Amino acid sequence: MQNKSLRDLLLASDLTVMMEAHSGLSARIAEEQGFSALWASGLSISSALGLRDYNEISYTHLIQIVEQMASATSLPVLVDGDTGYGNANNFRLLVKGLERAGAAGVVVEDKVFPKVNSFINAPQNLCGMREMEEKIAAGLTARRDKDFVVIARTEALIAGKDVEEALERAHCYVDAGVDAIFVHSKRNSGDQIVDFLLKWDNRSPVVIAPTTYTSANPKELENLGVKIYICANHNLRASVSAMRTICQEIKQAGSLDGVGTWLTPLSDLFKLLHYDQEDELFVQTNADSQ
Amino acid sequence: MQNKSLRDLLLASDLTVMMEAHSGLSARIAEEQGFSALWASGLSISSALGLRDYNEISYTHLIQIVEQMASATSLPVLVDGDTGYGNANNFRLLVKGLERAGAAGVVVEDKVFPKVNSFINAPQNLCGMREMEEKIAAGLTARRDKDFVVIARTEALIAGKDVEEALERAHCYVDAGVDAIFVHSKRNSGDQIVDFLLKWDNRSPVVIAPTTYTSANPKELENLGVKIYICANHNLRASVSAMRTICQEIKQAGSLDGVGTWLTPLSDLFKLLHYDQEDELFVQTNADSQ
Amino acid sequence: MQNKSLRDLLLASDLTVMMEAHSGLSARIAEEQGFSALWASGLSISSALGLRDYNEISYTHLIQIVEQMASATSLPVLVDGDTGYGNANNFRLLVKGLERAGAAGVVVEDKVFPKVNSFINAPQNLCGMREMEEKIAAGLTARRDKDFVVIARTEALIAGKDVEEALERAHCYVDAGVDAIFVHSKRNSGDQIVDFLLKWDNRSPVVIAPTTYTSANPKELENLGVKIYICANHNLRASVSAMRTICQEIKQAGSLDGVGTWLTPLSDLFKLLHYDQEDELFVQTNADSQ
Amino acid sequence: MQNKSLRDLLLASDLTVMMEAHSGLSARIAEEQGFSALWASGLSISSALGLRDYNEISYTHLIQIVEQMASATSLPVLVDGDTGYGNANNFRLLVKGLERAGAAGVVVEDKVFPKVNSFINAPQNLCGMREMEEKIAAGLTARRDKDFVVIARTEALIAGKDVEEALERAHCYVDAGVDAIFVHSKRNSGDQIVDFLLKWDNRSPVVIAPTTYTSANPKELENLGVKIYICANHNLRASVSAMRTICQEIKQAGSLDGVGTWLTPLSDLFKLLHYDQEDELFVQTNADSQ
Repeated sequence: MQNKSLRDLLLASDLTVMMEAHSGLSARIAEEQGFSALWASGLSISSALGLRDYNEISYTHLIQIVEQMASATSLPVLVDGDTGYGNANNFRLLVKGLERAGAAGVVVEDKVFPKVNSFINAPQNLCGMREMEEKIAAGLTARRDKDFVVIARTEALIAGKDVEEALERAHCYVDAGVDAIFVHSKRNSGDQIVDFLLKWDNRSPVVIAPTTYTSANPKELENLGVKIYICANHNLRASVSAMRTICQEIKQAGSLDGVGTWLTPLSDLFKLLHYDQEDELFVQTNADSQ
Repeated sequence: MQNKSLRDLLLASDLTVMMEAHSGLSARIAEEQGFSALWASGLSISSALGLRDYNEISYTHLIQIVEQMASATSLPVLVDGDTGYGNANNFRLLVKGLERAGAAGVVVEDKVFPKVNSFINAPQNLCGMREMEEKIAAGLTARRDKDFVVIARTEALIAGKDVEEALERAHCYVDAGVDAIFVHSKRNSGDQIVDFLLKWDNRSPVVIAPTTYTSANPKELENLGVKIYICANHNLRASVSAMRTICQEIKQAGSLDGVGTWLTPLSDLFKLLHYDQEDELFVQTNADSQ
Repeated sequence: MQNKSLRDLLLASDLTVMMEAHSGLSARIAEEQGFSALWASGLSISSALGLRDYNEISYTHLIQIVEQMASATSLPVLVDGDTGYGNANNFRLLVKGLERAGAAGVVVEDKVFPKVNSFINAPQNLCGMREMEEKIAAGLTARRDKDFVVIARTEALIAGKDVEEALERAHCYVDAGVDAIFVHSKRNSGDQIVDFLLKWDNRSPVVIAPTTYTSANPKELENLGVKIYICANHNLRASVSAMRTICQEIKQAGSLDGVGTWLTPLSDLFKLLHYDQEDELFVQTNADSQ
Repeated sequence: MQNKSLRDLLLASDLTVMMEAHSGLSARIAEEQGFSALWASGLSISSALGLRDYNEISYTHLIQIVEQMASATSLPVLVDGDTGYGNANNFRLLVKGLERAGAAGVVVEDKVFPKVNSFINAPQNLCGMREMEEKIAAGLTARRDKDFVVIARTEALIAGKDVEEALERAHCYVDAGVDAIFVHSKRNSGDQIVDFLLKWDNRSPVVIAPTTYTSANPKELENLGVKIYICANHNLRASVSAMRTICQEIKQAGSLDGVGTWLTPLSDLFKLLHYDQEDELFVQTNADSQ
């Protein structure tokens, strides 16, 4: 059901804005605020754990967190699978675990394991296309529900290659059977992506994450074939900013008096987390055990 | 070392403001902002996972998250152990696991398992003092490092009992050997706690979490023997508020253009998470594998 | 699919011998040897971890291990859910997690949490029937697939009560909607169970685990309505015996020379664990990464 | 303390026979039977989970299982760290996690990630010595207790290289600071290992696992500088053999009647798992909660 809905978004005529989540809580908030699909960001999930986006998180830990996210909402969750956590066999296990955990799809990218975050100024080493073909084949075979989505991400532009190489890789991956292409860029303008989209000419659905080229126009992108527009790390970055601020306020005040007037009240938190559901059952049981 | 430092805070003459954390990330932020100790809040940790503060989280999962927090900072972490996740034998296992995970201490409270969040309008059932004595004995025996702190929390006031019952329970728990007493109240004024403190007369160090009675004066509390003043859920509530806001802004804008000007920049996030450390090693290795 | 097959076994006319497993490996072996369903025993799983059958294992850890078992075989797995790891709300979470992990059903028993192993000479405290009704209701509501089986186990006989109390409880649980009744006894003869079965008169499918009354005749039990005959801890006990023996042999020999001629050869182990599957894919990938 | 004892074994004049364990239970049995140190085998741990020895297990899952083993015994546990689960940064995280989990040491080997089991007839690709130097440096820096042992394993002979290459690699790793060299061979005779030992001439302590060359004489190996003689997978292989046999017996009998007369009695299992310890505490608590 969730798988179907993600596939439907890829096949729809209009663009979907997909919100990053990195925990059950952030997933629930994105759903509450009206988003229709979630991006389980590797950077955000790693950061929330205090880890770096260098595959410091293990694949089983990622699956565990995706399971929490999928349990906390009814939205489809597209998972950032990095480079598949090893070779094709490792990616096979990742796909099986993610599907069981309730994810609706996964993205695998064409860098070497362990990956480096795309925004880090360090060598961004691409793997060979042959390795990606094997990973894609393994992922497609491993899924039990054919509506579970497998997407390939090319980091060619991140690695400093040109649009032609990105296109060559994208064609290879679509030939190998993926459901969509995620093309990534860290330019401050969307020109590179637009160039790609024009030459790609709608061969498959396209996914982007305009973290740096925020001024790119969604309507224009939609017209050029973008189906998923990922807000890749914004819940995480908003929470970091807010936690720093409340920490500063408390340190300065030396107490809780008058600080954080913008904090979510506990009663709101309880509503957000559905404390009102199953409560009758719960309270009865508790009373019974007296 | 961390255990020692938490014990030292309990024995110091002045009050320590302890900041809530619920993840490696929030722990790192509290450290960055100058706090000297962390409160691993059951409510906050559960909430971050999308779970309710009804012991929906398992004790092994709690230990796993505390391990992430302890790994992400050098600060001592005091863990909200709820009612010990069962009986004295369960609390024994919790203490062993938390100590191994790097926690500096644990708080066990005198309600029945599964607990209900103290701020929920539902029966707050206290356990017998005998059960607490057994849990305390089990916890004290289980710790390997005698500097690992075991604190008892009385929920007598939360359960609607009077200060006399809170005192009776506190005396019982100190007689059983705990290192400090955590006394909790959900009144909007600190009068009840002050009454307790006056009658307690410094028999042991005292810990409080003035979530509702924020106007209580820290200096006055310090003079009455409070050693730890816990900001119990403020990082979590700040992050909820911020994530809701960024979600709203993005939904409204329909894109990332111009939203969240208050977001933490990625470069800042990388600094916070120490991407600059061990990088020489890392980049070498990566280059070598080409 | 697996859920359906367990339900079918409960509805079949003949008795199924269900084999205990406590790991992916033991599950695979039971499947290899021709069993058609698996019992994920709490005692065996706890023992394999070095834990006691006193709910020392957490519910999330149990789910993790069941997931490994379900991933390792295509057989339906019936899970020993003990007392549901708390109250009805905790059992709700257990059911959701087990179903997601690939289990085909769960058994919940009418003792208090934390449970004591039934064969331990310690107080075997029963919970009230009201608490069981709530847990059953929670479990039935929580399952997504109506073929996921929820079974109630009465420990009345284990607790020293008579067959009448076991029957009263069993009727209550079937009224509450469970799919079958598991009635447990630790007598050395099956007379008590036969007495129960005669009076129960096929009101629902019945599950037993004749650990102590091994001489009870399966055909007779089948005629009296037993559908599942659980071999509750035999893989575990066989492995303990064998590991003790090989340890003794090696200690005595002071080397591996000539010991354990009965050991499974590595080549056999590789076959059992399907090293021959997906190998073409695997070896290609590995070669490619050179 | 455990770390110290493993280091002491490496520095002792005589050879230690180290027994494989793959779970809390098997660790407890090896301790009961008199072994003084444990080998946490990657093959055995993976097999117990139903996974293949191709790095299908994640590093965090390995740490979790080592934690169970370390908790279940007082023996030092030497962990099979394979190739470090990625690059030097990944190995750094593995060492930190293993030390926290209670391991006494780790072995890192010079193949590429993901590794292939050494006994599999597939390409056994060695990594460069530079990569090993980086991993060793990362591991040595990451350990907090200088008694935590870091050992390098060369798979040169497994990869079909000659003794000279094994020696060159071993010298490189000792130069990089490891505490011992693990040299592996899958020949049916120990000649290759003896050749290595003669030329190595006691430059550092040596570890071996004579899985295939079981007839090699421990006294002779000891005289040539072998300090640790690993029985690498024998608990696991014994348990597989026994579980297959009990399954066959039960299938054939169609019941538990008369089968497995060699099974460990439950009462023995309870003793092995220390049900008699902390029982007074436990039973009191349980009675109290009535």
